Amino acid sequence: MTRDDVLALDAADPLAPLRHQFEIPPGLIYLDGNSLGVLPKATAARVQQVVQQEWGVGLIRSWNRAGWIDLPQRLGDKIAQLVGVGPGELVVADSTSVNVFKVLSAALAISRADAPQRSVILSERSNFPTDLYIAQAVAEQQGFELVLADADDVPGLLNDRTAVLMLTHVNYRTGRMFDMAALSQAAHAAGVMTVWDLAHSAGAVPVALAADGADFAVGCGYKYLNGGPGAPAFVWAHPRHADRFWQPLAGWMGHAAPFEFTPNYRPAAGIARYLCGTPPVLSMAALDCGVDTVLAAEPLGGMPALRAKSLALSRLFAKQVMVTCPGLRLASPMDDAQRGSQVCFSHPSSGYALMQALIAREVIGDFRAPDILRFGFTPLYLRFVDAWDAADHLAQVIRSGEWQRPEFNQRQAVT
Amino acid sequence: MTRDDVLALDAADPLAPLRHQFEIPPGLIYLDGNSLGVLPKATAARVQQVVQQEWGVGLIRSWNRAGWIDLPQRLGDKIAQLVGVGPGELVVADSTSVNVFKVLSAALAISRADAPQRSVILSERSNFPTDLYIAQAVAEQQGFELVLADADDVPGLLNDRTAVLMLTHVNYRTGRMFDMAALSQAAHAAGVMTVWDLAHSAGAVPVALAADGADFAVGCGYKYLNGGPGAPAFVWAHPRHADRFWQPLAGWMGHAAPFEFTPNYRPAAGIARYLCGTPPVLSMAALDCGVDTVLAAEPLGGMPALRAKSLALSRLFAKQVMVTCPGLRLASPMDDAQRGSQVCFSHPSSGYALMQALIAREVIGDFRAPDILRFGFTPLYLRFVDAWDAADHLAQVIRSGEWQRPEFNQRQAVT
Repeated sequence: MTRDDVLALDAADPLAPLRHQFEIPPGLIYLDGNSLGVLPKATAARVQQVVQQEWGVGLIRSWNRAGWIDLPQRLGDKIAQLVGVGPGELVVADSTSVNVFKVLSAALAISRADAPQRSVILSERSNFPTDLYIAQAVAEQQGFELVLADADDVPGLLNDRTAVLMLTHVNYRTGRMFDMAALSQAAHAAGVMTVWDLAHSAGAVPVALAADGADFAVGCGYKYLNGGPGAPAFVWAHPRHADRFWQPLAGWMGHAAPFEFTPNYRPAAGIARYLCGTPPVLSMAALDCGVDTVLAAEPLGGMPALRAKSLALSRLFAKQVMVTCPGLRLASPMDDAQRGSQVCFSHPSSGYALMQALIAREVIGDFRAPDILRFGFTPLYLRFVDAWDAADHLAQVIRSGEWQRPEFNQRQAVT
Repeated sequence: MTRDDVLALDAADPLAPLRHQFEIPPGLIYLDGNSLGVLPKATAARVQQVVQQEWGVGLIRSWNRAGWIDLPQRLGDKIAQLVGVGPGELVVADSTSVNVFKVLSAALAISRADAPQRSVILSERSNFPTDLYIAQAVAEQQGFELVLADADDVPGLLNDRTAVLMLTHVNYRTGRMFDMAALSQAAHAAGVMTVWDLAHSAGAVPVALAADGADFAVGCGYKYLNGGPGAPAFVWAHPRHADRFWQPLAGWMGHAAPFEFTPNYRPAAGIARYLCGTPPVLSMAALDCGVDTVLAAEPLGGMPALRAKSLALSRLFAKQVMVTCPGLRLASPMDDAQRGSQVCFSHPSSGYALMQALIAREVIGDFRAPDILRFGFTPLYLRFVDAWDAADHLAQVIRSGEWQRPEFNQRQAVT
């Protein structure tokens, strides 16, 4: 395969026009959409409209006139389409971490009511830390035990001691994707509830929460949904669970009638009780534009088409790197069914410096301690030639030895 | 007093130039800054800068280059100046509701460790509902009893059964302000910890958390701090408490080393452990501009000067309304020491319609069920003539009977 062959792939790509939805700095190859998605072209004007008109002129009236009050639901209904659930089942709220707390608390309350002898929260040892930290705190507070296992050992621990299985669908470091349907089925067969974190799934891979038997889910707005830095997150509870318990973050926006200002909490019906405080309107407006960029793929084949392109991109990159970059070890599954929308390589000693040198060449991935170089492939805005050129730059970084420059070894606060 | 006398007050007001910091729609009299502050002139450009440059061009690199990662602390240090605590003691994070959960959980954990026999969370019956709802959930989850009392009965309930006293410093409905120093002293004398919600205090009245003996505090970014709709909130723990316990929302941003990605939670030192998920950068940038508008008063006398003007504004308005508006009953204290930065009136039957008719005249206050017309006085951008004209409009609304039009009785989602 040559670079011309790759350019031909782009020329034949029916999804190629989707890239025009984004502001991508000229010359930049951005393989970090799994950490922070790029800026949609529509966002700046929309945010200005919200700031200058809705806030500046409409002021408090915009809660009604501009529909601020329904933003968590309207945005939730859009995201619902991307994760295989119905309208009215999902809301946008708070951060992923806070939402993990809500759904884990609710799942444990249900488990405790139905099966009080179950005392274990089961998760994967290499799950994203914030999920584990929250689970650790919840376990300590509520008298459960957090058990962490290697991914392959998870099914064997679905037993009558386990209350809840909490997993991130696509692993943040390796990109390894769990089989949600199979694990949910195994969990349910053992009487275990499932909580899924879709941080690296929503907008990246097809997700079918309802069909695959999930019980609860959360997800992130600022990665593949392109909602901007620190965009709010989302939360879903299966309708059979949503009304059973309040979650303990019982803020006024989750009340059945917030503007009656009554002293007693009466939870709203359904998923609205998973709202808590006043929604962050500016950040939600930006997220709305981001979600629209993913929904724009629907007429072109939607998530299945995006998925096919994503796999092709990551496969192309992985193969090139394996051929041209000595010293790097593939850390992601090459089996398409097990790979999310990213490819990772490990380097025993110099992963950080290699990534810094690559970033200096305007090829942006990221480093995840202790040894992972991580490359996200967002099919909405990446071209095949980007994958090719990125691999080429990485090979040059290694060949030239430029990564050994002292400035590439200076650690920054955020890696 | 005549309108000309009032115009003379404005002409002589040394704080008058502060109004030029804001975009105020022409002809509008905005007495709802206690619900949503107005738009600072600096905000639109700052938010655009963050969207187009920091996000659009800088992308993931802006966590370091643009200092996104330190925003919660940098903004917290600014707000700390307004509430009487030191740098490094306060962070911006999440919503007020979520922060109430954090500090209440921490306060109860400390109380349980030091005085396990104490089982009561004491609050005011007319506290803002979200505080009560969160307290209700925490009490149920952690085995405490929530006791609600009338404001005057609070001191008598500070006994050896009470673990935590949780109050909103300035009541959201009546504007009545508690004496933080006296209540904190009485609470401590009885072995009770104090949690203060500063939603209607920060930027509105002088607050001296440390000097007045508070243990924990939370506050709101979108009211008197002018941070925009749904702006993030803030949280403070007295340094003697901050390190004692984690709060249960143990997200990765509160970890001692978030980018080490270790599976075990190790809380950051001090108030940083009260952070949880990824901070909402767009909303934080807007809040930063809002806080700056309050700090801009420092060379002109700061919070004491703002307080004096606020009291003069609300006194002028209250007196005019009492003289010219039959049927309205004052629902706020006229004693300056007990009044926050708002004035409220009750009407037995038609408060909602009266407020809607007033809003149709471009005089914006709000209605709080069941019977309160609420008027906030933000000395940063209100003139004495605004208070005078607002009272005049309210008198005309009543005299003309225009409030009886059917459209003013149609309830909207947000009141």
